[in-house]
Amino acid sequence: MTAATQGAKYTIGVDFGSESGRAVLVDIATGREVATAIYRYRNGVLDEHLPAPDDDVRLAPDWALQDPLDYIRTFQETVPAVLAEAAVNAADVVGVGIDFTACTMLPTTADGTPLCALPEFRRDPHAWVKLWKHHAAQPQADRINELARQRGEAWLASYGGRISSEWFFAKSLQILDEAPHIYRAADRLIEAADWVVWRLTGNECRNSCTAGYKAMWSKDAGFPSTAFFAGLDSALATIVADKMSSDIASIGERAGGLTAEAAAWTTLVPGTPVAVANVDAHVSVPASTVTGPGTMVAVMGTSICHLVLGSRPAAVEGMCGVVEDGIVPGLFGFEAGQSAVGDLFAWFVETSVPPAYHAAAAAQGIDVHAVLEREAARLQPGENGLVALDWWNGNRSILVDADLTGLIVGATLATRTSDIYRSLIEATAFGTRVIIEAFEAAGVAIDEVVACGGLPERNRLLMQVYADVTGRVFRIAASTQTAALGSAMFGAVAAGAAEGGYDTIDEATERMARLSDVVFRPNVANRAAYDALFAEYRRLHDDFGRGESSTMKRLKAIRAAAIATATVGP
Amino acid sequence: MTAATQGAKYTIGVDFGSESGRAVLVDIATGREVATAIYRYRNGVLDEHLPAPDDDVRLAPDWALQDPLDYIRTFQETVPAVLAEAAVNAADVVGVGIDFTACTMLPTTADGTPLCALPEFRRDPHAWVKLWKHHAAQPQADRINELARQRGEAWLASYGGRISSEWFFAKSLQILDEAPHIYRAADRLIEAADWVVWRLTGNECRNSCTAGYKAMWSKDAGFPSTAFFAGLDSALATIVADKMSSDIASIGERAGGLTAEAAAWTTLVPGTPVAVANVDAHVSVPASTVTGPGTMVAVMGTSICHLVLGSRPAAVEGMCGVVEDGIVPGLFGFEAGQSAVGDLFAWFVETSVPPAYHAAAAAQGIDVHAVLEREAARLQPGENGLVALDWWNGNRSILVDADLTGLIVGATLATRTSDIYRSLIEATAFGTRVIIEAFEAAGVAIDEVVACGGLPERNRLLMQVYADVTGRVFRIAASTQTAALGSAMFGAVAAGAAEGGYDTIDEATERMARLSDVVFRPNVANRAAYDALFAEYRRLHDDFGRGESSTMKRLKAIRAAAIATATVGP
Repeated sequence: MTAATQGAKYTIGVDFGSESGRAVLVDIATGREVATAIYRYRNGVLDEHLPAPDDDVRLAPDWALQDPLDYIRTFQETVPAVLAEAAVNAADVVGVGIDFTACTMLPTTADGTPLCALPEFRRDPHAWVKLWKHHAAQPQADRINELARQRGEAWLASYGGRISSEWFFAKSLQILDEAPHIYRAADRLIEAADWVVWRLTGNECRNSCTAGYKAMWSKDAGFPSTAFFAGLDSALATIVADKMSSDIASIGERAGGLTAEAAAWTTLVPGTPVAVANVDAHVSVPASTVTGPGTMVAVMGTSICHLVLGSRPAAVEGMCGVVEDGIVPGLFGFEAGQSAVGDLFAWFVETSVPPAYHAAAAAQGIDVHAVLEREAARLQPGENGLVALDWWNGNRSILVDADLTGLIVGATLATRTSDIYRSLIEATAFGTRVIIEAFEAAGVAIDEVVACGGLPERNRLLMQVYADVTGRVFRIAASTQTAALGSAMFGAVAAGAAEGGYDTIDEATERMARLSDVVFRPNVANRAAYDALFAEYRRLHDDFGRGESSTMKRLKAIRAAAIATATVGP
Repeated sequence: MTAATQGAKYTIGVDFGSESGRAVLVDIATGREVATAIYRYRNGVLDEHLPAPDDDVRLAPDWALQDPLDYIRTFQETVPAVLAEAAVNAADVVGVGIDFTACTMLPTTADGTPLCALPEFRRDPHAWVKLWKHHAAQPQADRINELARQRGEAWLASYGGRISSEWFFAKSLQILDEAPHIYRAADRLIEAADWVVWRLTGNECRNSCTAGYKAMWSKDAGFPSTAFFAGLDSALATIVADKMSSDIASIGERAGGLTAEAAAWTTLVPGTPVAVANVDAHVSVPASTVTGPGTMVAVMGTSICHLVLGSRPAAVEGMCGVVEDGIVPGLFGFEAGQSAVGDLFAWFVETSVPPAYHAAAAAQGIDVHAVLEREAARLQPGENGLVALDWWNGNRSILVDADLTGLIVGATLATRTSDIYRSLIEATAFGTRVIIEAFEAAGVAIDEVVACGGLPERNRLLMQVYADVTGRVFRIAASTQTAALGSAMFGAVAAGAAEGGYDTIDEATERMARLSDVVFRPNVANRAAYDALFAEYRRLHDDFGRGESSTMKRLKAIRAAAIATATVGP
């Protein structure tokens, strides 16, 4: 492996994903990723039962929990590993940053002990970490949305008019509804992102990113009012004062220094500066070289998260949120999203690709996606005769409707597997174009796009289609682990120039973040065909996604009724 | 094989398909199919080039020709074979009937010699038989439809308002347009069905079925007028008088007796009665036990042909045709159709079924369809959450629009392969329900359905879904070769009771046709879910098939433009 450079200084970023945590050790001067280590969570995603010895406690559908001790183990396993691998002296590590999935939250005691770590609560599922994809709080999200609409809450407009079941107060209210004793026992309710920073620094420091995007906080107005919370449940009225904090630290600040305990976990030096916590997608923005308006960052993996910076707020239709200081201090961070992208292609390969493609992939030692991509790349735009609505997992932006479903039209007996595959790629590109047009319609410029997150480097056709469909240049972040790199960059900013880091995220970005040399430019020859296809997409989008034609919702209702009456077969 | 019964009398039906011809020898008293023989056409379907030694003559896309000598070889190969197999004396064969695909037509000299059999014409594709699925006469069909609309031709209403490129005058006009020397040289233009009867009997006898369904003839009004044909092309004005005949024989009549030459081909007795020619789907109606109103016969294979008898004419939306004496003498025969049924399921298995299903089929020694069917059969109606429009090959009835395409809506990341398979089955059942409702709306009762044609005996789920969706009892013809059996029955009617057969098709049907014991009755428990799903189908059907939302046609136009501009890759 690459050895440390004489006299160099380093920063460490730790990225907490759904299945594992990852640390990267980065050279502050160059952004070179010197060493990486991954810890696969011992208890993974808990979606069927609690971990042994309590594995007789079953979890209902839509539940997804985690064990907070897996996060501590991540520090213990990965940070010493990267130091050792790179042969770097702990004293040369000037800062640490972390990023997390969100909203991933847990109840703790006043000193930060997770309730699930206490014997009296550990058999109660509500005492554990609720992972971002815990979807069992939908009834609570519905109540929050209903009340917010009734009361005309101003903050609703910042979230596309609807908050998600994944978010902080939906999950908190579910605890109160279903396990009031846990709610009462919880001195604190806290994002896991902030909890790990608390564990590292001893400082319960709440970050502006998760507060803004997941807990309806804004710099101007703070959290929703006591009256609003009281309208949901009198016991919830003082949740912010009692179990949270109104003292929100901006992204880019220093949360504190490593405690002796955390220094022992990590083998770092006590007092090493630790950045305010961040979110995985959002921290990828500077790691993709973007610290100002005009360039969208598309974090492309199983889904797409679209992030844009603006110098002032704007009402963008169907965005997930807009938060001041939410991504880069001093700017408004806009977030939008598409619910199924890589997941959609994976679904297709799993359910709809015949043996010949699998055999070709095996024979050539490549992925089935690569075989499909090669065949699909031979087609002219429009040649497949298909257009799809990419709503296999609902529509996040701009329709904000989880009950929408996938549609494909144009199939004939001559339609091939690769025709359909290409139409799904095109559909996700059309979805991105709808989002870009919504931003531009609201006065937020999107001049070009930087993609990161896994899909871009694997699928050149995908990138070219996105460039052609959106008419934007698509660049790709050089790093394949932008979240961890971005956290390391914020670690450098937490240190500051005086302690060997940087004073601003702009400076850190200039020195540490890079783009790949591969650039996808719109092919003007494809413009007319894609404009024509996009007009069809847009028409179907509005027909099925808005207004009268609620075919998709009626089908969901019919399906729910069928499942409810289904008798289990022999 | 089964031996002949002492003293029994027999009839022979010969069914001319697309790839082969088949003869069946049937016991007149019982309808028992004593022996069957199949001849695979030496020159098959000619869709790339003419047969050797002229195989350097290439055919354009959409062409489909045949060699008429293959039909003669069918007689020579199959009739002696069934006689030999059954050890039946030729003197005990009282009649012969034939059925054919339609419109399958050819140009001949005045004595019936096919032009393609003459050295001076054999290298001209227009001298050969144009098979039913020759689709290169679309421009001519468009002209015929256009002129018929302009002139307000009354016959247009009998064909759903539009005639097909497959039909007789479209094909004839294509010959005139593209090969006027062939048109001039053709003393006769004739359905292959009638041509083989001519070859058997020496009598150029034209049948009411193909004349009515494929050449716009009716018992009352005859063929379209000279003025109409002159409007298409002055050279076409007298096509009926010059190259056809206005003397149309009804289904059920005798065309003549076997010539000495034909007796030599078949080893039958000269003078053996031969029935007026018939069409494969239509002749299946009495073979499915139906000779009166109230019961639909669904000939279910790659597509579905729906046939219904009525005592008076009616304007049924989008039917393929209504012809007096077209199916059973004395009644009006209605025909409707669905363009892709078995073909759709085959397309799905070929393009969209992953390896696990193929492996399961191989391991269990069953068909992939059977694996899918078993999994799909476990679902409740509506549980798949999907609805599809089954227009992978356009919509024949009731929209009469070849440019419509397939659609599926409701897909999620939880959708399985078998969910989609079931939705395609359901979509074809919904298509049948639309047709049944169109008949009933026009006052033509459909009380129950008899299915035949290949699919019914192979797929029980399909039949049950059809019964549930349509609310009709579905029965199945006992014979697996209803066309050949039906032809044999008409052979018996050609003989008449005096010569050992029957005087009417009703009598023949009563004695010779049977139903399977398997009956599919509507499951009332599924009614509500299917009514709800059908309402969605009907809404999409009208939105995409009629009126404003011509997404499918625009996609076809975009595709055509893309293919036209496509450069061939390296």
